[in-house]
Amino acid sequence: MRYSFKNDYTEACHPKILQALVDTNSVQQLGYGFDDYCKQAADIFRSKIKNEKAGVFFVSGGTQANLLVISSLLKPFESVIAAQTGHIESNETGAIEAVGHKINLVTTDNGKITTEGIQKVLDMHLNIPHQVRPKLVYISNTTEVGTHYSRAELENLYQFCQSKKLLLFIDGARLSQAIAISEADLSLEIIAKNSDVFYFGGTKNGALIGEAIIFNNEKLSEDFPYFIKQKGAMLAKGRLLGIQFLELLKDDLYLKLGQHANRQTQKIKNAFDGIKAQFLTDSSSNQIFPILKKSHIEVLQSKFDFYVWKEIDADFAAIRVICSWATTDNAVEEFVAAIHSLK
Amino acid sequence: MRYSFKNDYTEACHPKILQALVDTNSVQQLGYGFDDYCKQAADIFRSKIKNEKAGVFFVSGGTQANLLVISSLLKPFESVIAAQTGHIESNETGAIEAVGHKINLVTTDNGKITTEGIQKVLDMHLNIPHQVRPKLVYISNTTEVGTHYSRAELENLYQFCQSKKLLLFIDGARLSQAIAISEADLSLEIIAKNSDVFYFGGTKNGALIGEAIIFNNEKLSEDFPYFIKQKGAMLAKGRLLGIQFLELLKDDLYLKLGQHANRQTQKIKNAFDGIKAQFLTDSSSNQIFPILKKSHIEVLQSKFDFYVWKEIDADFAAIRVICSWATTDNAVEEFVAAIHSLK
Amino acid sequence: MRYSFKNDYTEACHPKILQALVDTNSVQQLGYGFDDYCKQAADIFRSKIKNEKAGVFFVSGGTQANLLVISSLLKPFESVIAAQTGHIESNETGAIEAVGHKINLVTTDNGKITTEGIQKVLDMHLNIPHQVRPKLVYISNTTEVGTHYSRAELENLYQFCQSKKLLLFIDGARLSQAIAISEADLSLEIIAKNSDVFYFGGTKNGALIGEAIIFNNEKLSEDFPYFIKQKGAMLAKGRLLGIQFLELLKDDLYLKLGQHANRQTQKIKNAFDGIKAQFLTDSSSNQIFPILKKSHIEVLQSKFDFYVWKEIDADFAAIRVICSWATTDNAVEEFVAAIHSLK
Amino acid sequence: MRYSFKNDYTEACHPKILQALVDTNSVQQLGYGFDDYCKQAADIFRSKIKNEKAGVFFVSGGTQANLLVISSLLKPFESVIAAQTGHIESNETGAIEAVGHKINLVTTDNGKITTEGIQKVLDMHLNIPHQVRPKLVYISNTTEVGTHYSRAELENLYQFCQSKKLLLFIDGARLSQAIAISEADLSLEIIAKNSDVFYFGGTKNGALIGEAIIFNNEKLSEDFPYFIKQKGAMLAKGRLLGIQFLELLKDDLYLKLGQHANRQTQKIKNAFDGIKAQFLTDSSSNQIFPILKKSHIEVLQSKFDFYVWKEIDADFAAIRVICSWATTDNAVEEFVAAIHSLK
Repeated sequence: MRYSFKNDYTEACHPKILQALVDTNSVQQLGYGFDDYCKQAADIFRSKIKNEKAGVFFVSGGTQANLLVISSLLKPFESVIAAQTGHIESNETGAIEAVGHKINLVTTDNGKITTEGIQKVLDMHLNIPHQVRPKLVYISNTTEVGTHYSRAELENLYQFCQSKKLLLFIDGARLSQAIAISEADLSLEIIAKNSDVFYFGGTKNGALIGEAIIFNNEKLSEDFPYFIKQKGAMLAKGRLLGIQFLELLKDDLYLKLGQHANRQTQKIKNAFDGIKAQFLTDSSSNQIFPILKKSHIEVLQSKFDFYVWKEIDADFAAIRVICSWATTDNAVEEFVAAIHSLK
Repeated sequence: MRYSFKNDYTEACHPKILQALVDTNSVQQLGYGFDDYCKQAADIFRSKIKNEKAGVFFVSGGTQANLLVISSLLKPFESVIAAQTGHIESNETGAIEAVGHKINLVTTDNGKITTEGIQKVLDMHLNIPHQVRPKLVYISNTTEVGTHYSRAELENLYQFCQSKKLLLFIDGARLSQAIAISEADLSLEIIAKNSDVFYFGGTKNGALIGEAIIFNNEKLSEDFPYFIKQKGAMLAKGRLLGIQFLELLKDDLYLKLGQHANRQTQKIKNAFDGIKAQFLTDSSSNQIFPILKKSHIEVLQSKFDFYVWKEIDADFAAIRVICSWATTDNAVEEFVAAIHSLK
Repeated sequence: MRYSFKNDYTEACHPKILQALVDTNSVQQLGYGFDDYCKQAADIFRSKIKNEKAGVFFVSGGTQANLLVISSLLKPFESVIAAQTGHIESNETGAIEAVGHKINLVTTDNGKITTEGIQKVLDMHLNIPHQVRPKLVYISNTTEVGTHYSRAELENLYQFCQSKKLLLFIDGARLSQAIAISEADLSLEIIAKNSDVFYFGGTKNGALIGEAIIFNNEKLSEDFPYFIKQKGAMLAKGRLLGIQFLELLKDDLYLKLGQHANRQTQKIKNAFDGIKAQFLTDSSSNQIFPILKKSHIEVLQSKFDFYVWKEIDADFAAIRVICSWATTDNAVEEFVAAIHSLK
Repeated sequence: MRYSFKNDYTEACHPKILQALVDTNSVQQLGYGFDDYCKQAADIFRSKIKNEKAGVFFVSGGTQANLLVISSLLKPFESVIAAQTGHIESNETGAIEAVGHKINLVTTDNGKITTEGIQKVLDMHLNIPHQVRPKLVYISNTTEVGTHYSRAELENLYQFCQSKKLLLFIDGARLSQAIAISEADLSLEIIAKNSDVFYFGGTKNGALIGEAIIFNNEKLSEDFPYFIKQKGAMLAKGRLLGIQFLELLKDDLYLKLGQHANRQTQKIKNAFDGIKAQFLTDSSSNQIFPILKKSHIEVLQSKFDFYVWKEIDADFAAIRVICSWATTDNAVEEFVAAIHSLK
């Protein structure tokens, strides 16, 4: 079987999480998120973002987190502003529209929304009440194309949103990978302080399942449990989520895993740089999109698994390469060697 | 008060419709569309499109017609393909998303969708089941920017849709105005034969309210009355709709009114041509979008009412001028004179 | 053709309304409810309920009014409390569920909700967040079975709702008929002061179409125009609604029409009393439900049209008889004579 | 800490499942349910129900399974028939209404729906299109109150549903416990053959999370993956579900666990019988509802945890006692001893 660089959810979970599941297996606990582990994990998040009132909730996956947060924050006639590359737009089977909301798109080359892009959407929605009211800005950090928002960019964006009475929601499916980029100058606290709500991804950073939804703007989360239950997202054995986040938070495991994923990916990026490959986007994270000759892609595909992302022209295409918390040095070295052998 | 060229719903209804309302006022009739007038009007539509099985329904307005048709035809995960300028996208407060469906946009200069534009959307929706399934193409004839689809264009579009298992729905808020363009080579029958369902607008062509929804593909309409009722669109006194369409259909009044609206508008267009104005779109119908010096716009605004549609640059803007079935020769002449006086 | 006592929407509109439509037909007006007539009618409503800030809106029909009001007031996990006989429960094709809300039913013999009935629902919804949160009480006055809430009953109900943080919404499809019951001690002002929002029915009291939605609790209506547009309920020629309510309000025409409808019905009721008929409910309004021998029903059906409402047993059934603003003395006298001839 | 008889999701997972998670942890697998384990588990289900074309899908929880199945099967105006005690009615925060569908309730003493109850609902929905169309019957086996449908009852019910063009959907959150009742004469195959779709619960029978949705009527499931994704129910690491069901199916572990849960509960039931307690329902499964003196309840509560289910009168209340696959002999013996000590 070819080694896979297709995704960061190819392996199951980090050994420490596995061990915690084993250790706690026979303890009796309350259901529906009232277990001790969920409570402890929530408290650690509150402590890390320095807001003891923050609303903290655990759900299974990213699409679920997105539709829960957005449907809980918007009135029926309000819309979301998102990048064209945003996961809610392109890869969630219309989940946001299915809960009733329009997505106003911002065109972008690098997956990132600017204040100019937001303002343009606002300017096109002045015909009240014949148009939706844009109310929430959705961004992903890191983005779906591997780029990231730095602390300064986030601060600027959130300030702008607040001045326009827009809420800011950060999809953090790969938030650990963003925080792991040292020049981004991010932390959980900075993320929290510069958004109304964000989610912190477990699934793509070593958990079996699980995303932690964190409302720094705690008033927004008062009724959130109703939404979790109504949309079928409340696990009877919520302990499964709490235990995993406890482990990810312990000794900042999440950060170490994010750093590992980025580091392995950047080694591969360097190899592609070495053969003068271009990239679709400028990524410092665990997703890269090198543009290669199709003949080279075929060579690599014979030994490794990855997505061919986008046709460029008759001769070239972009591929996506992802490393995860679990990607071994050995696999990376073999891939790098294979890249170096291309000619 | 300044004479208004803002819209084609500025006056109430055509005198013949008013007279019919007077004449039938005290007759007892069944409610909810089971009155004699609705039945007769439906039969005339069926006869005109030569399909005695066609589903024919009457509702109050265009947004209502659009959301009813689209929500009745799509499964929850299916989407609509529409032009960026489409009414459902830009001016219906997210009505389609509110019934759960994503709109996939086709960029267009002239408000018209091409088969290439549709194919592009299809090509971007291959990641099953992570993306919506495009299932219905929505077009407006005439379009929201005054252009129209000719018979040949419609035939081509519908053939393409059928080959791709896409349904075609025509928003006919201004369908009479399209049919009234003789070079378009259209008729109710041609519209019906080249779509699965369309609606025939009354409100913008002389009725008080009312759009007739016509399914030439009659199987699609079996359950439609449930939708009409559930969405609050079923009038207890459905006679109000039936009576009006009976009058619009009698001696092809609808066509004469559409022709009048176009003719009056084109006189004004000629006047703008005479002063070498450019236009946003090439329109043969009752909506035109001349681009004028802002100083000229101010002069015209002092005597007439119309929309300033779009800023072009510091000096120029486009305005929208609409004539209706009711626009008088006198008003047109005065407007034309005012245009000629601009310098 | 047999004279119909089936409904109060069997004829078109009151002659004064018809005349007003004729008189205003050619006046140019702004669209979408910004016309002069809507403004004037709204102001008269505000004046009658002595709240100049009240939100007043006009829509086409009752199901539409119900789904608009309810969907605008409830969060996605909140529910409506309604009588089992409530129109939203039994005759609106699931319109409320279609906008996402559960209806919690109160069993009732006479179509009226009591505070005990509401409390029972509240007591059954304590398992947070596994159950919906009851938030709005929906009542109809007069009810769907002809009964009514008096001033004292309404005051008691509203006080209770406020103490429980429940909103009260009155479906007034036949509100004029309720106000026309003098012993009920009602008025528009009393209705407004004892509810958060109500609608005042035009369709069943002499208008062609039209229900006026009135929020005495004006804060609740800030975003209401968005809902009207999004659900397809905003008429381009909103004047059609404004003109009709102006006429219904002029010299309290609505009240005179309601009194007429009740009076004609009560004459028929007296006739049924005269032959010792029982009734399903004790009605003082324009709907009665006498229980008759099936053979007698057949005799009456040969000359008059009405609904057979409910099978009682092998020999008896209840029928529904309704008079409207338009029911003639002649028709009533003939019906009374026919009743007297039964044996 | 007091031993808990509150629920069957109080412990985590069966040791064999835990071991399988450990064993497979580092294997690379495709995401989104395309892993080997999901495929194998689905094939075993197909083999057990003797329908190799059956649609088999894995999701996280019961509310999710219910809303997915129901929203995928119903048109917007169609409704579900359910018992008043049905989980979708009473404990899912309006999840079914939130996806747009009304629930038509059948009153029942024992949590079970009869053909008479269904027929009564059908008889009350004849006013087309002013009412919803009942289309799907939802039952739970075992029911929410511990009772069960036997093979004969199911066959009768399904035959009736088919004759009325109604779909039958079985909520099998505790299906293993039903099959484990030998006099019920059930099996996976019999369940499948006597329903259009059912779900087989993992969460309440030894899994961490997971319900397997099985469409014996395979045509109904063609588009189901779109629903799973759109509602946020598709796990990136679907392997977590596949692995667990593989273990539950291996050597019919599910059945052994169901038998254990029932057996432990019935021992406790016998103890209550021994002190002449009455029960709310006649249960042979792992949920019992003994009616006890409140003073006795307090005594038991001092040592054990369970729900006080329902106030009976000033002196008596019903409690709910549940045993699971994990309930130890020791705990049962202590509880039985405590019951015998009551006086």
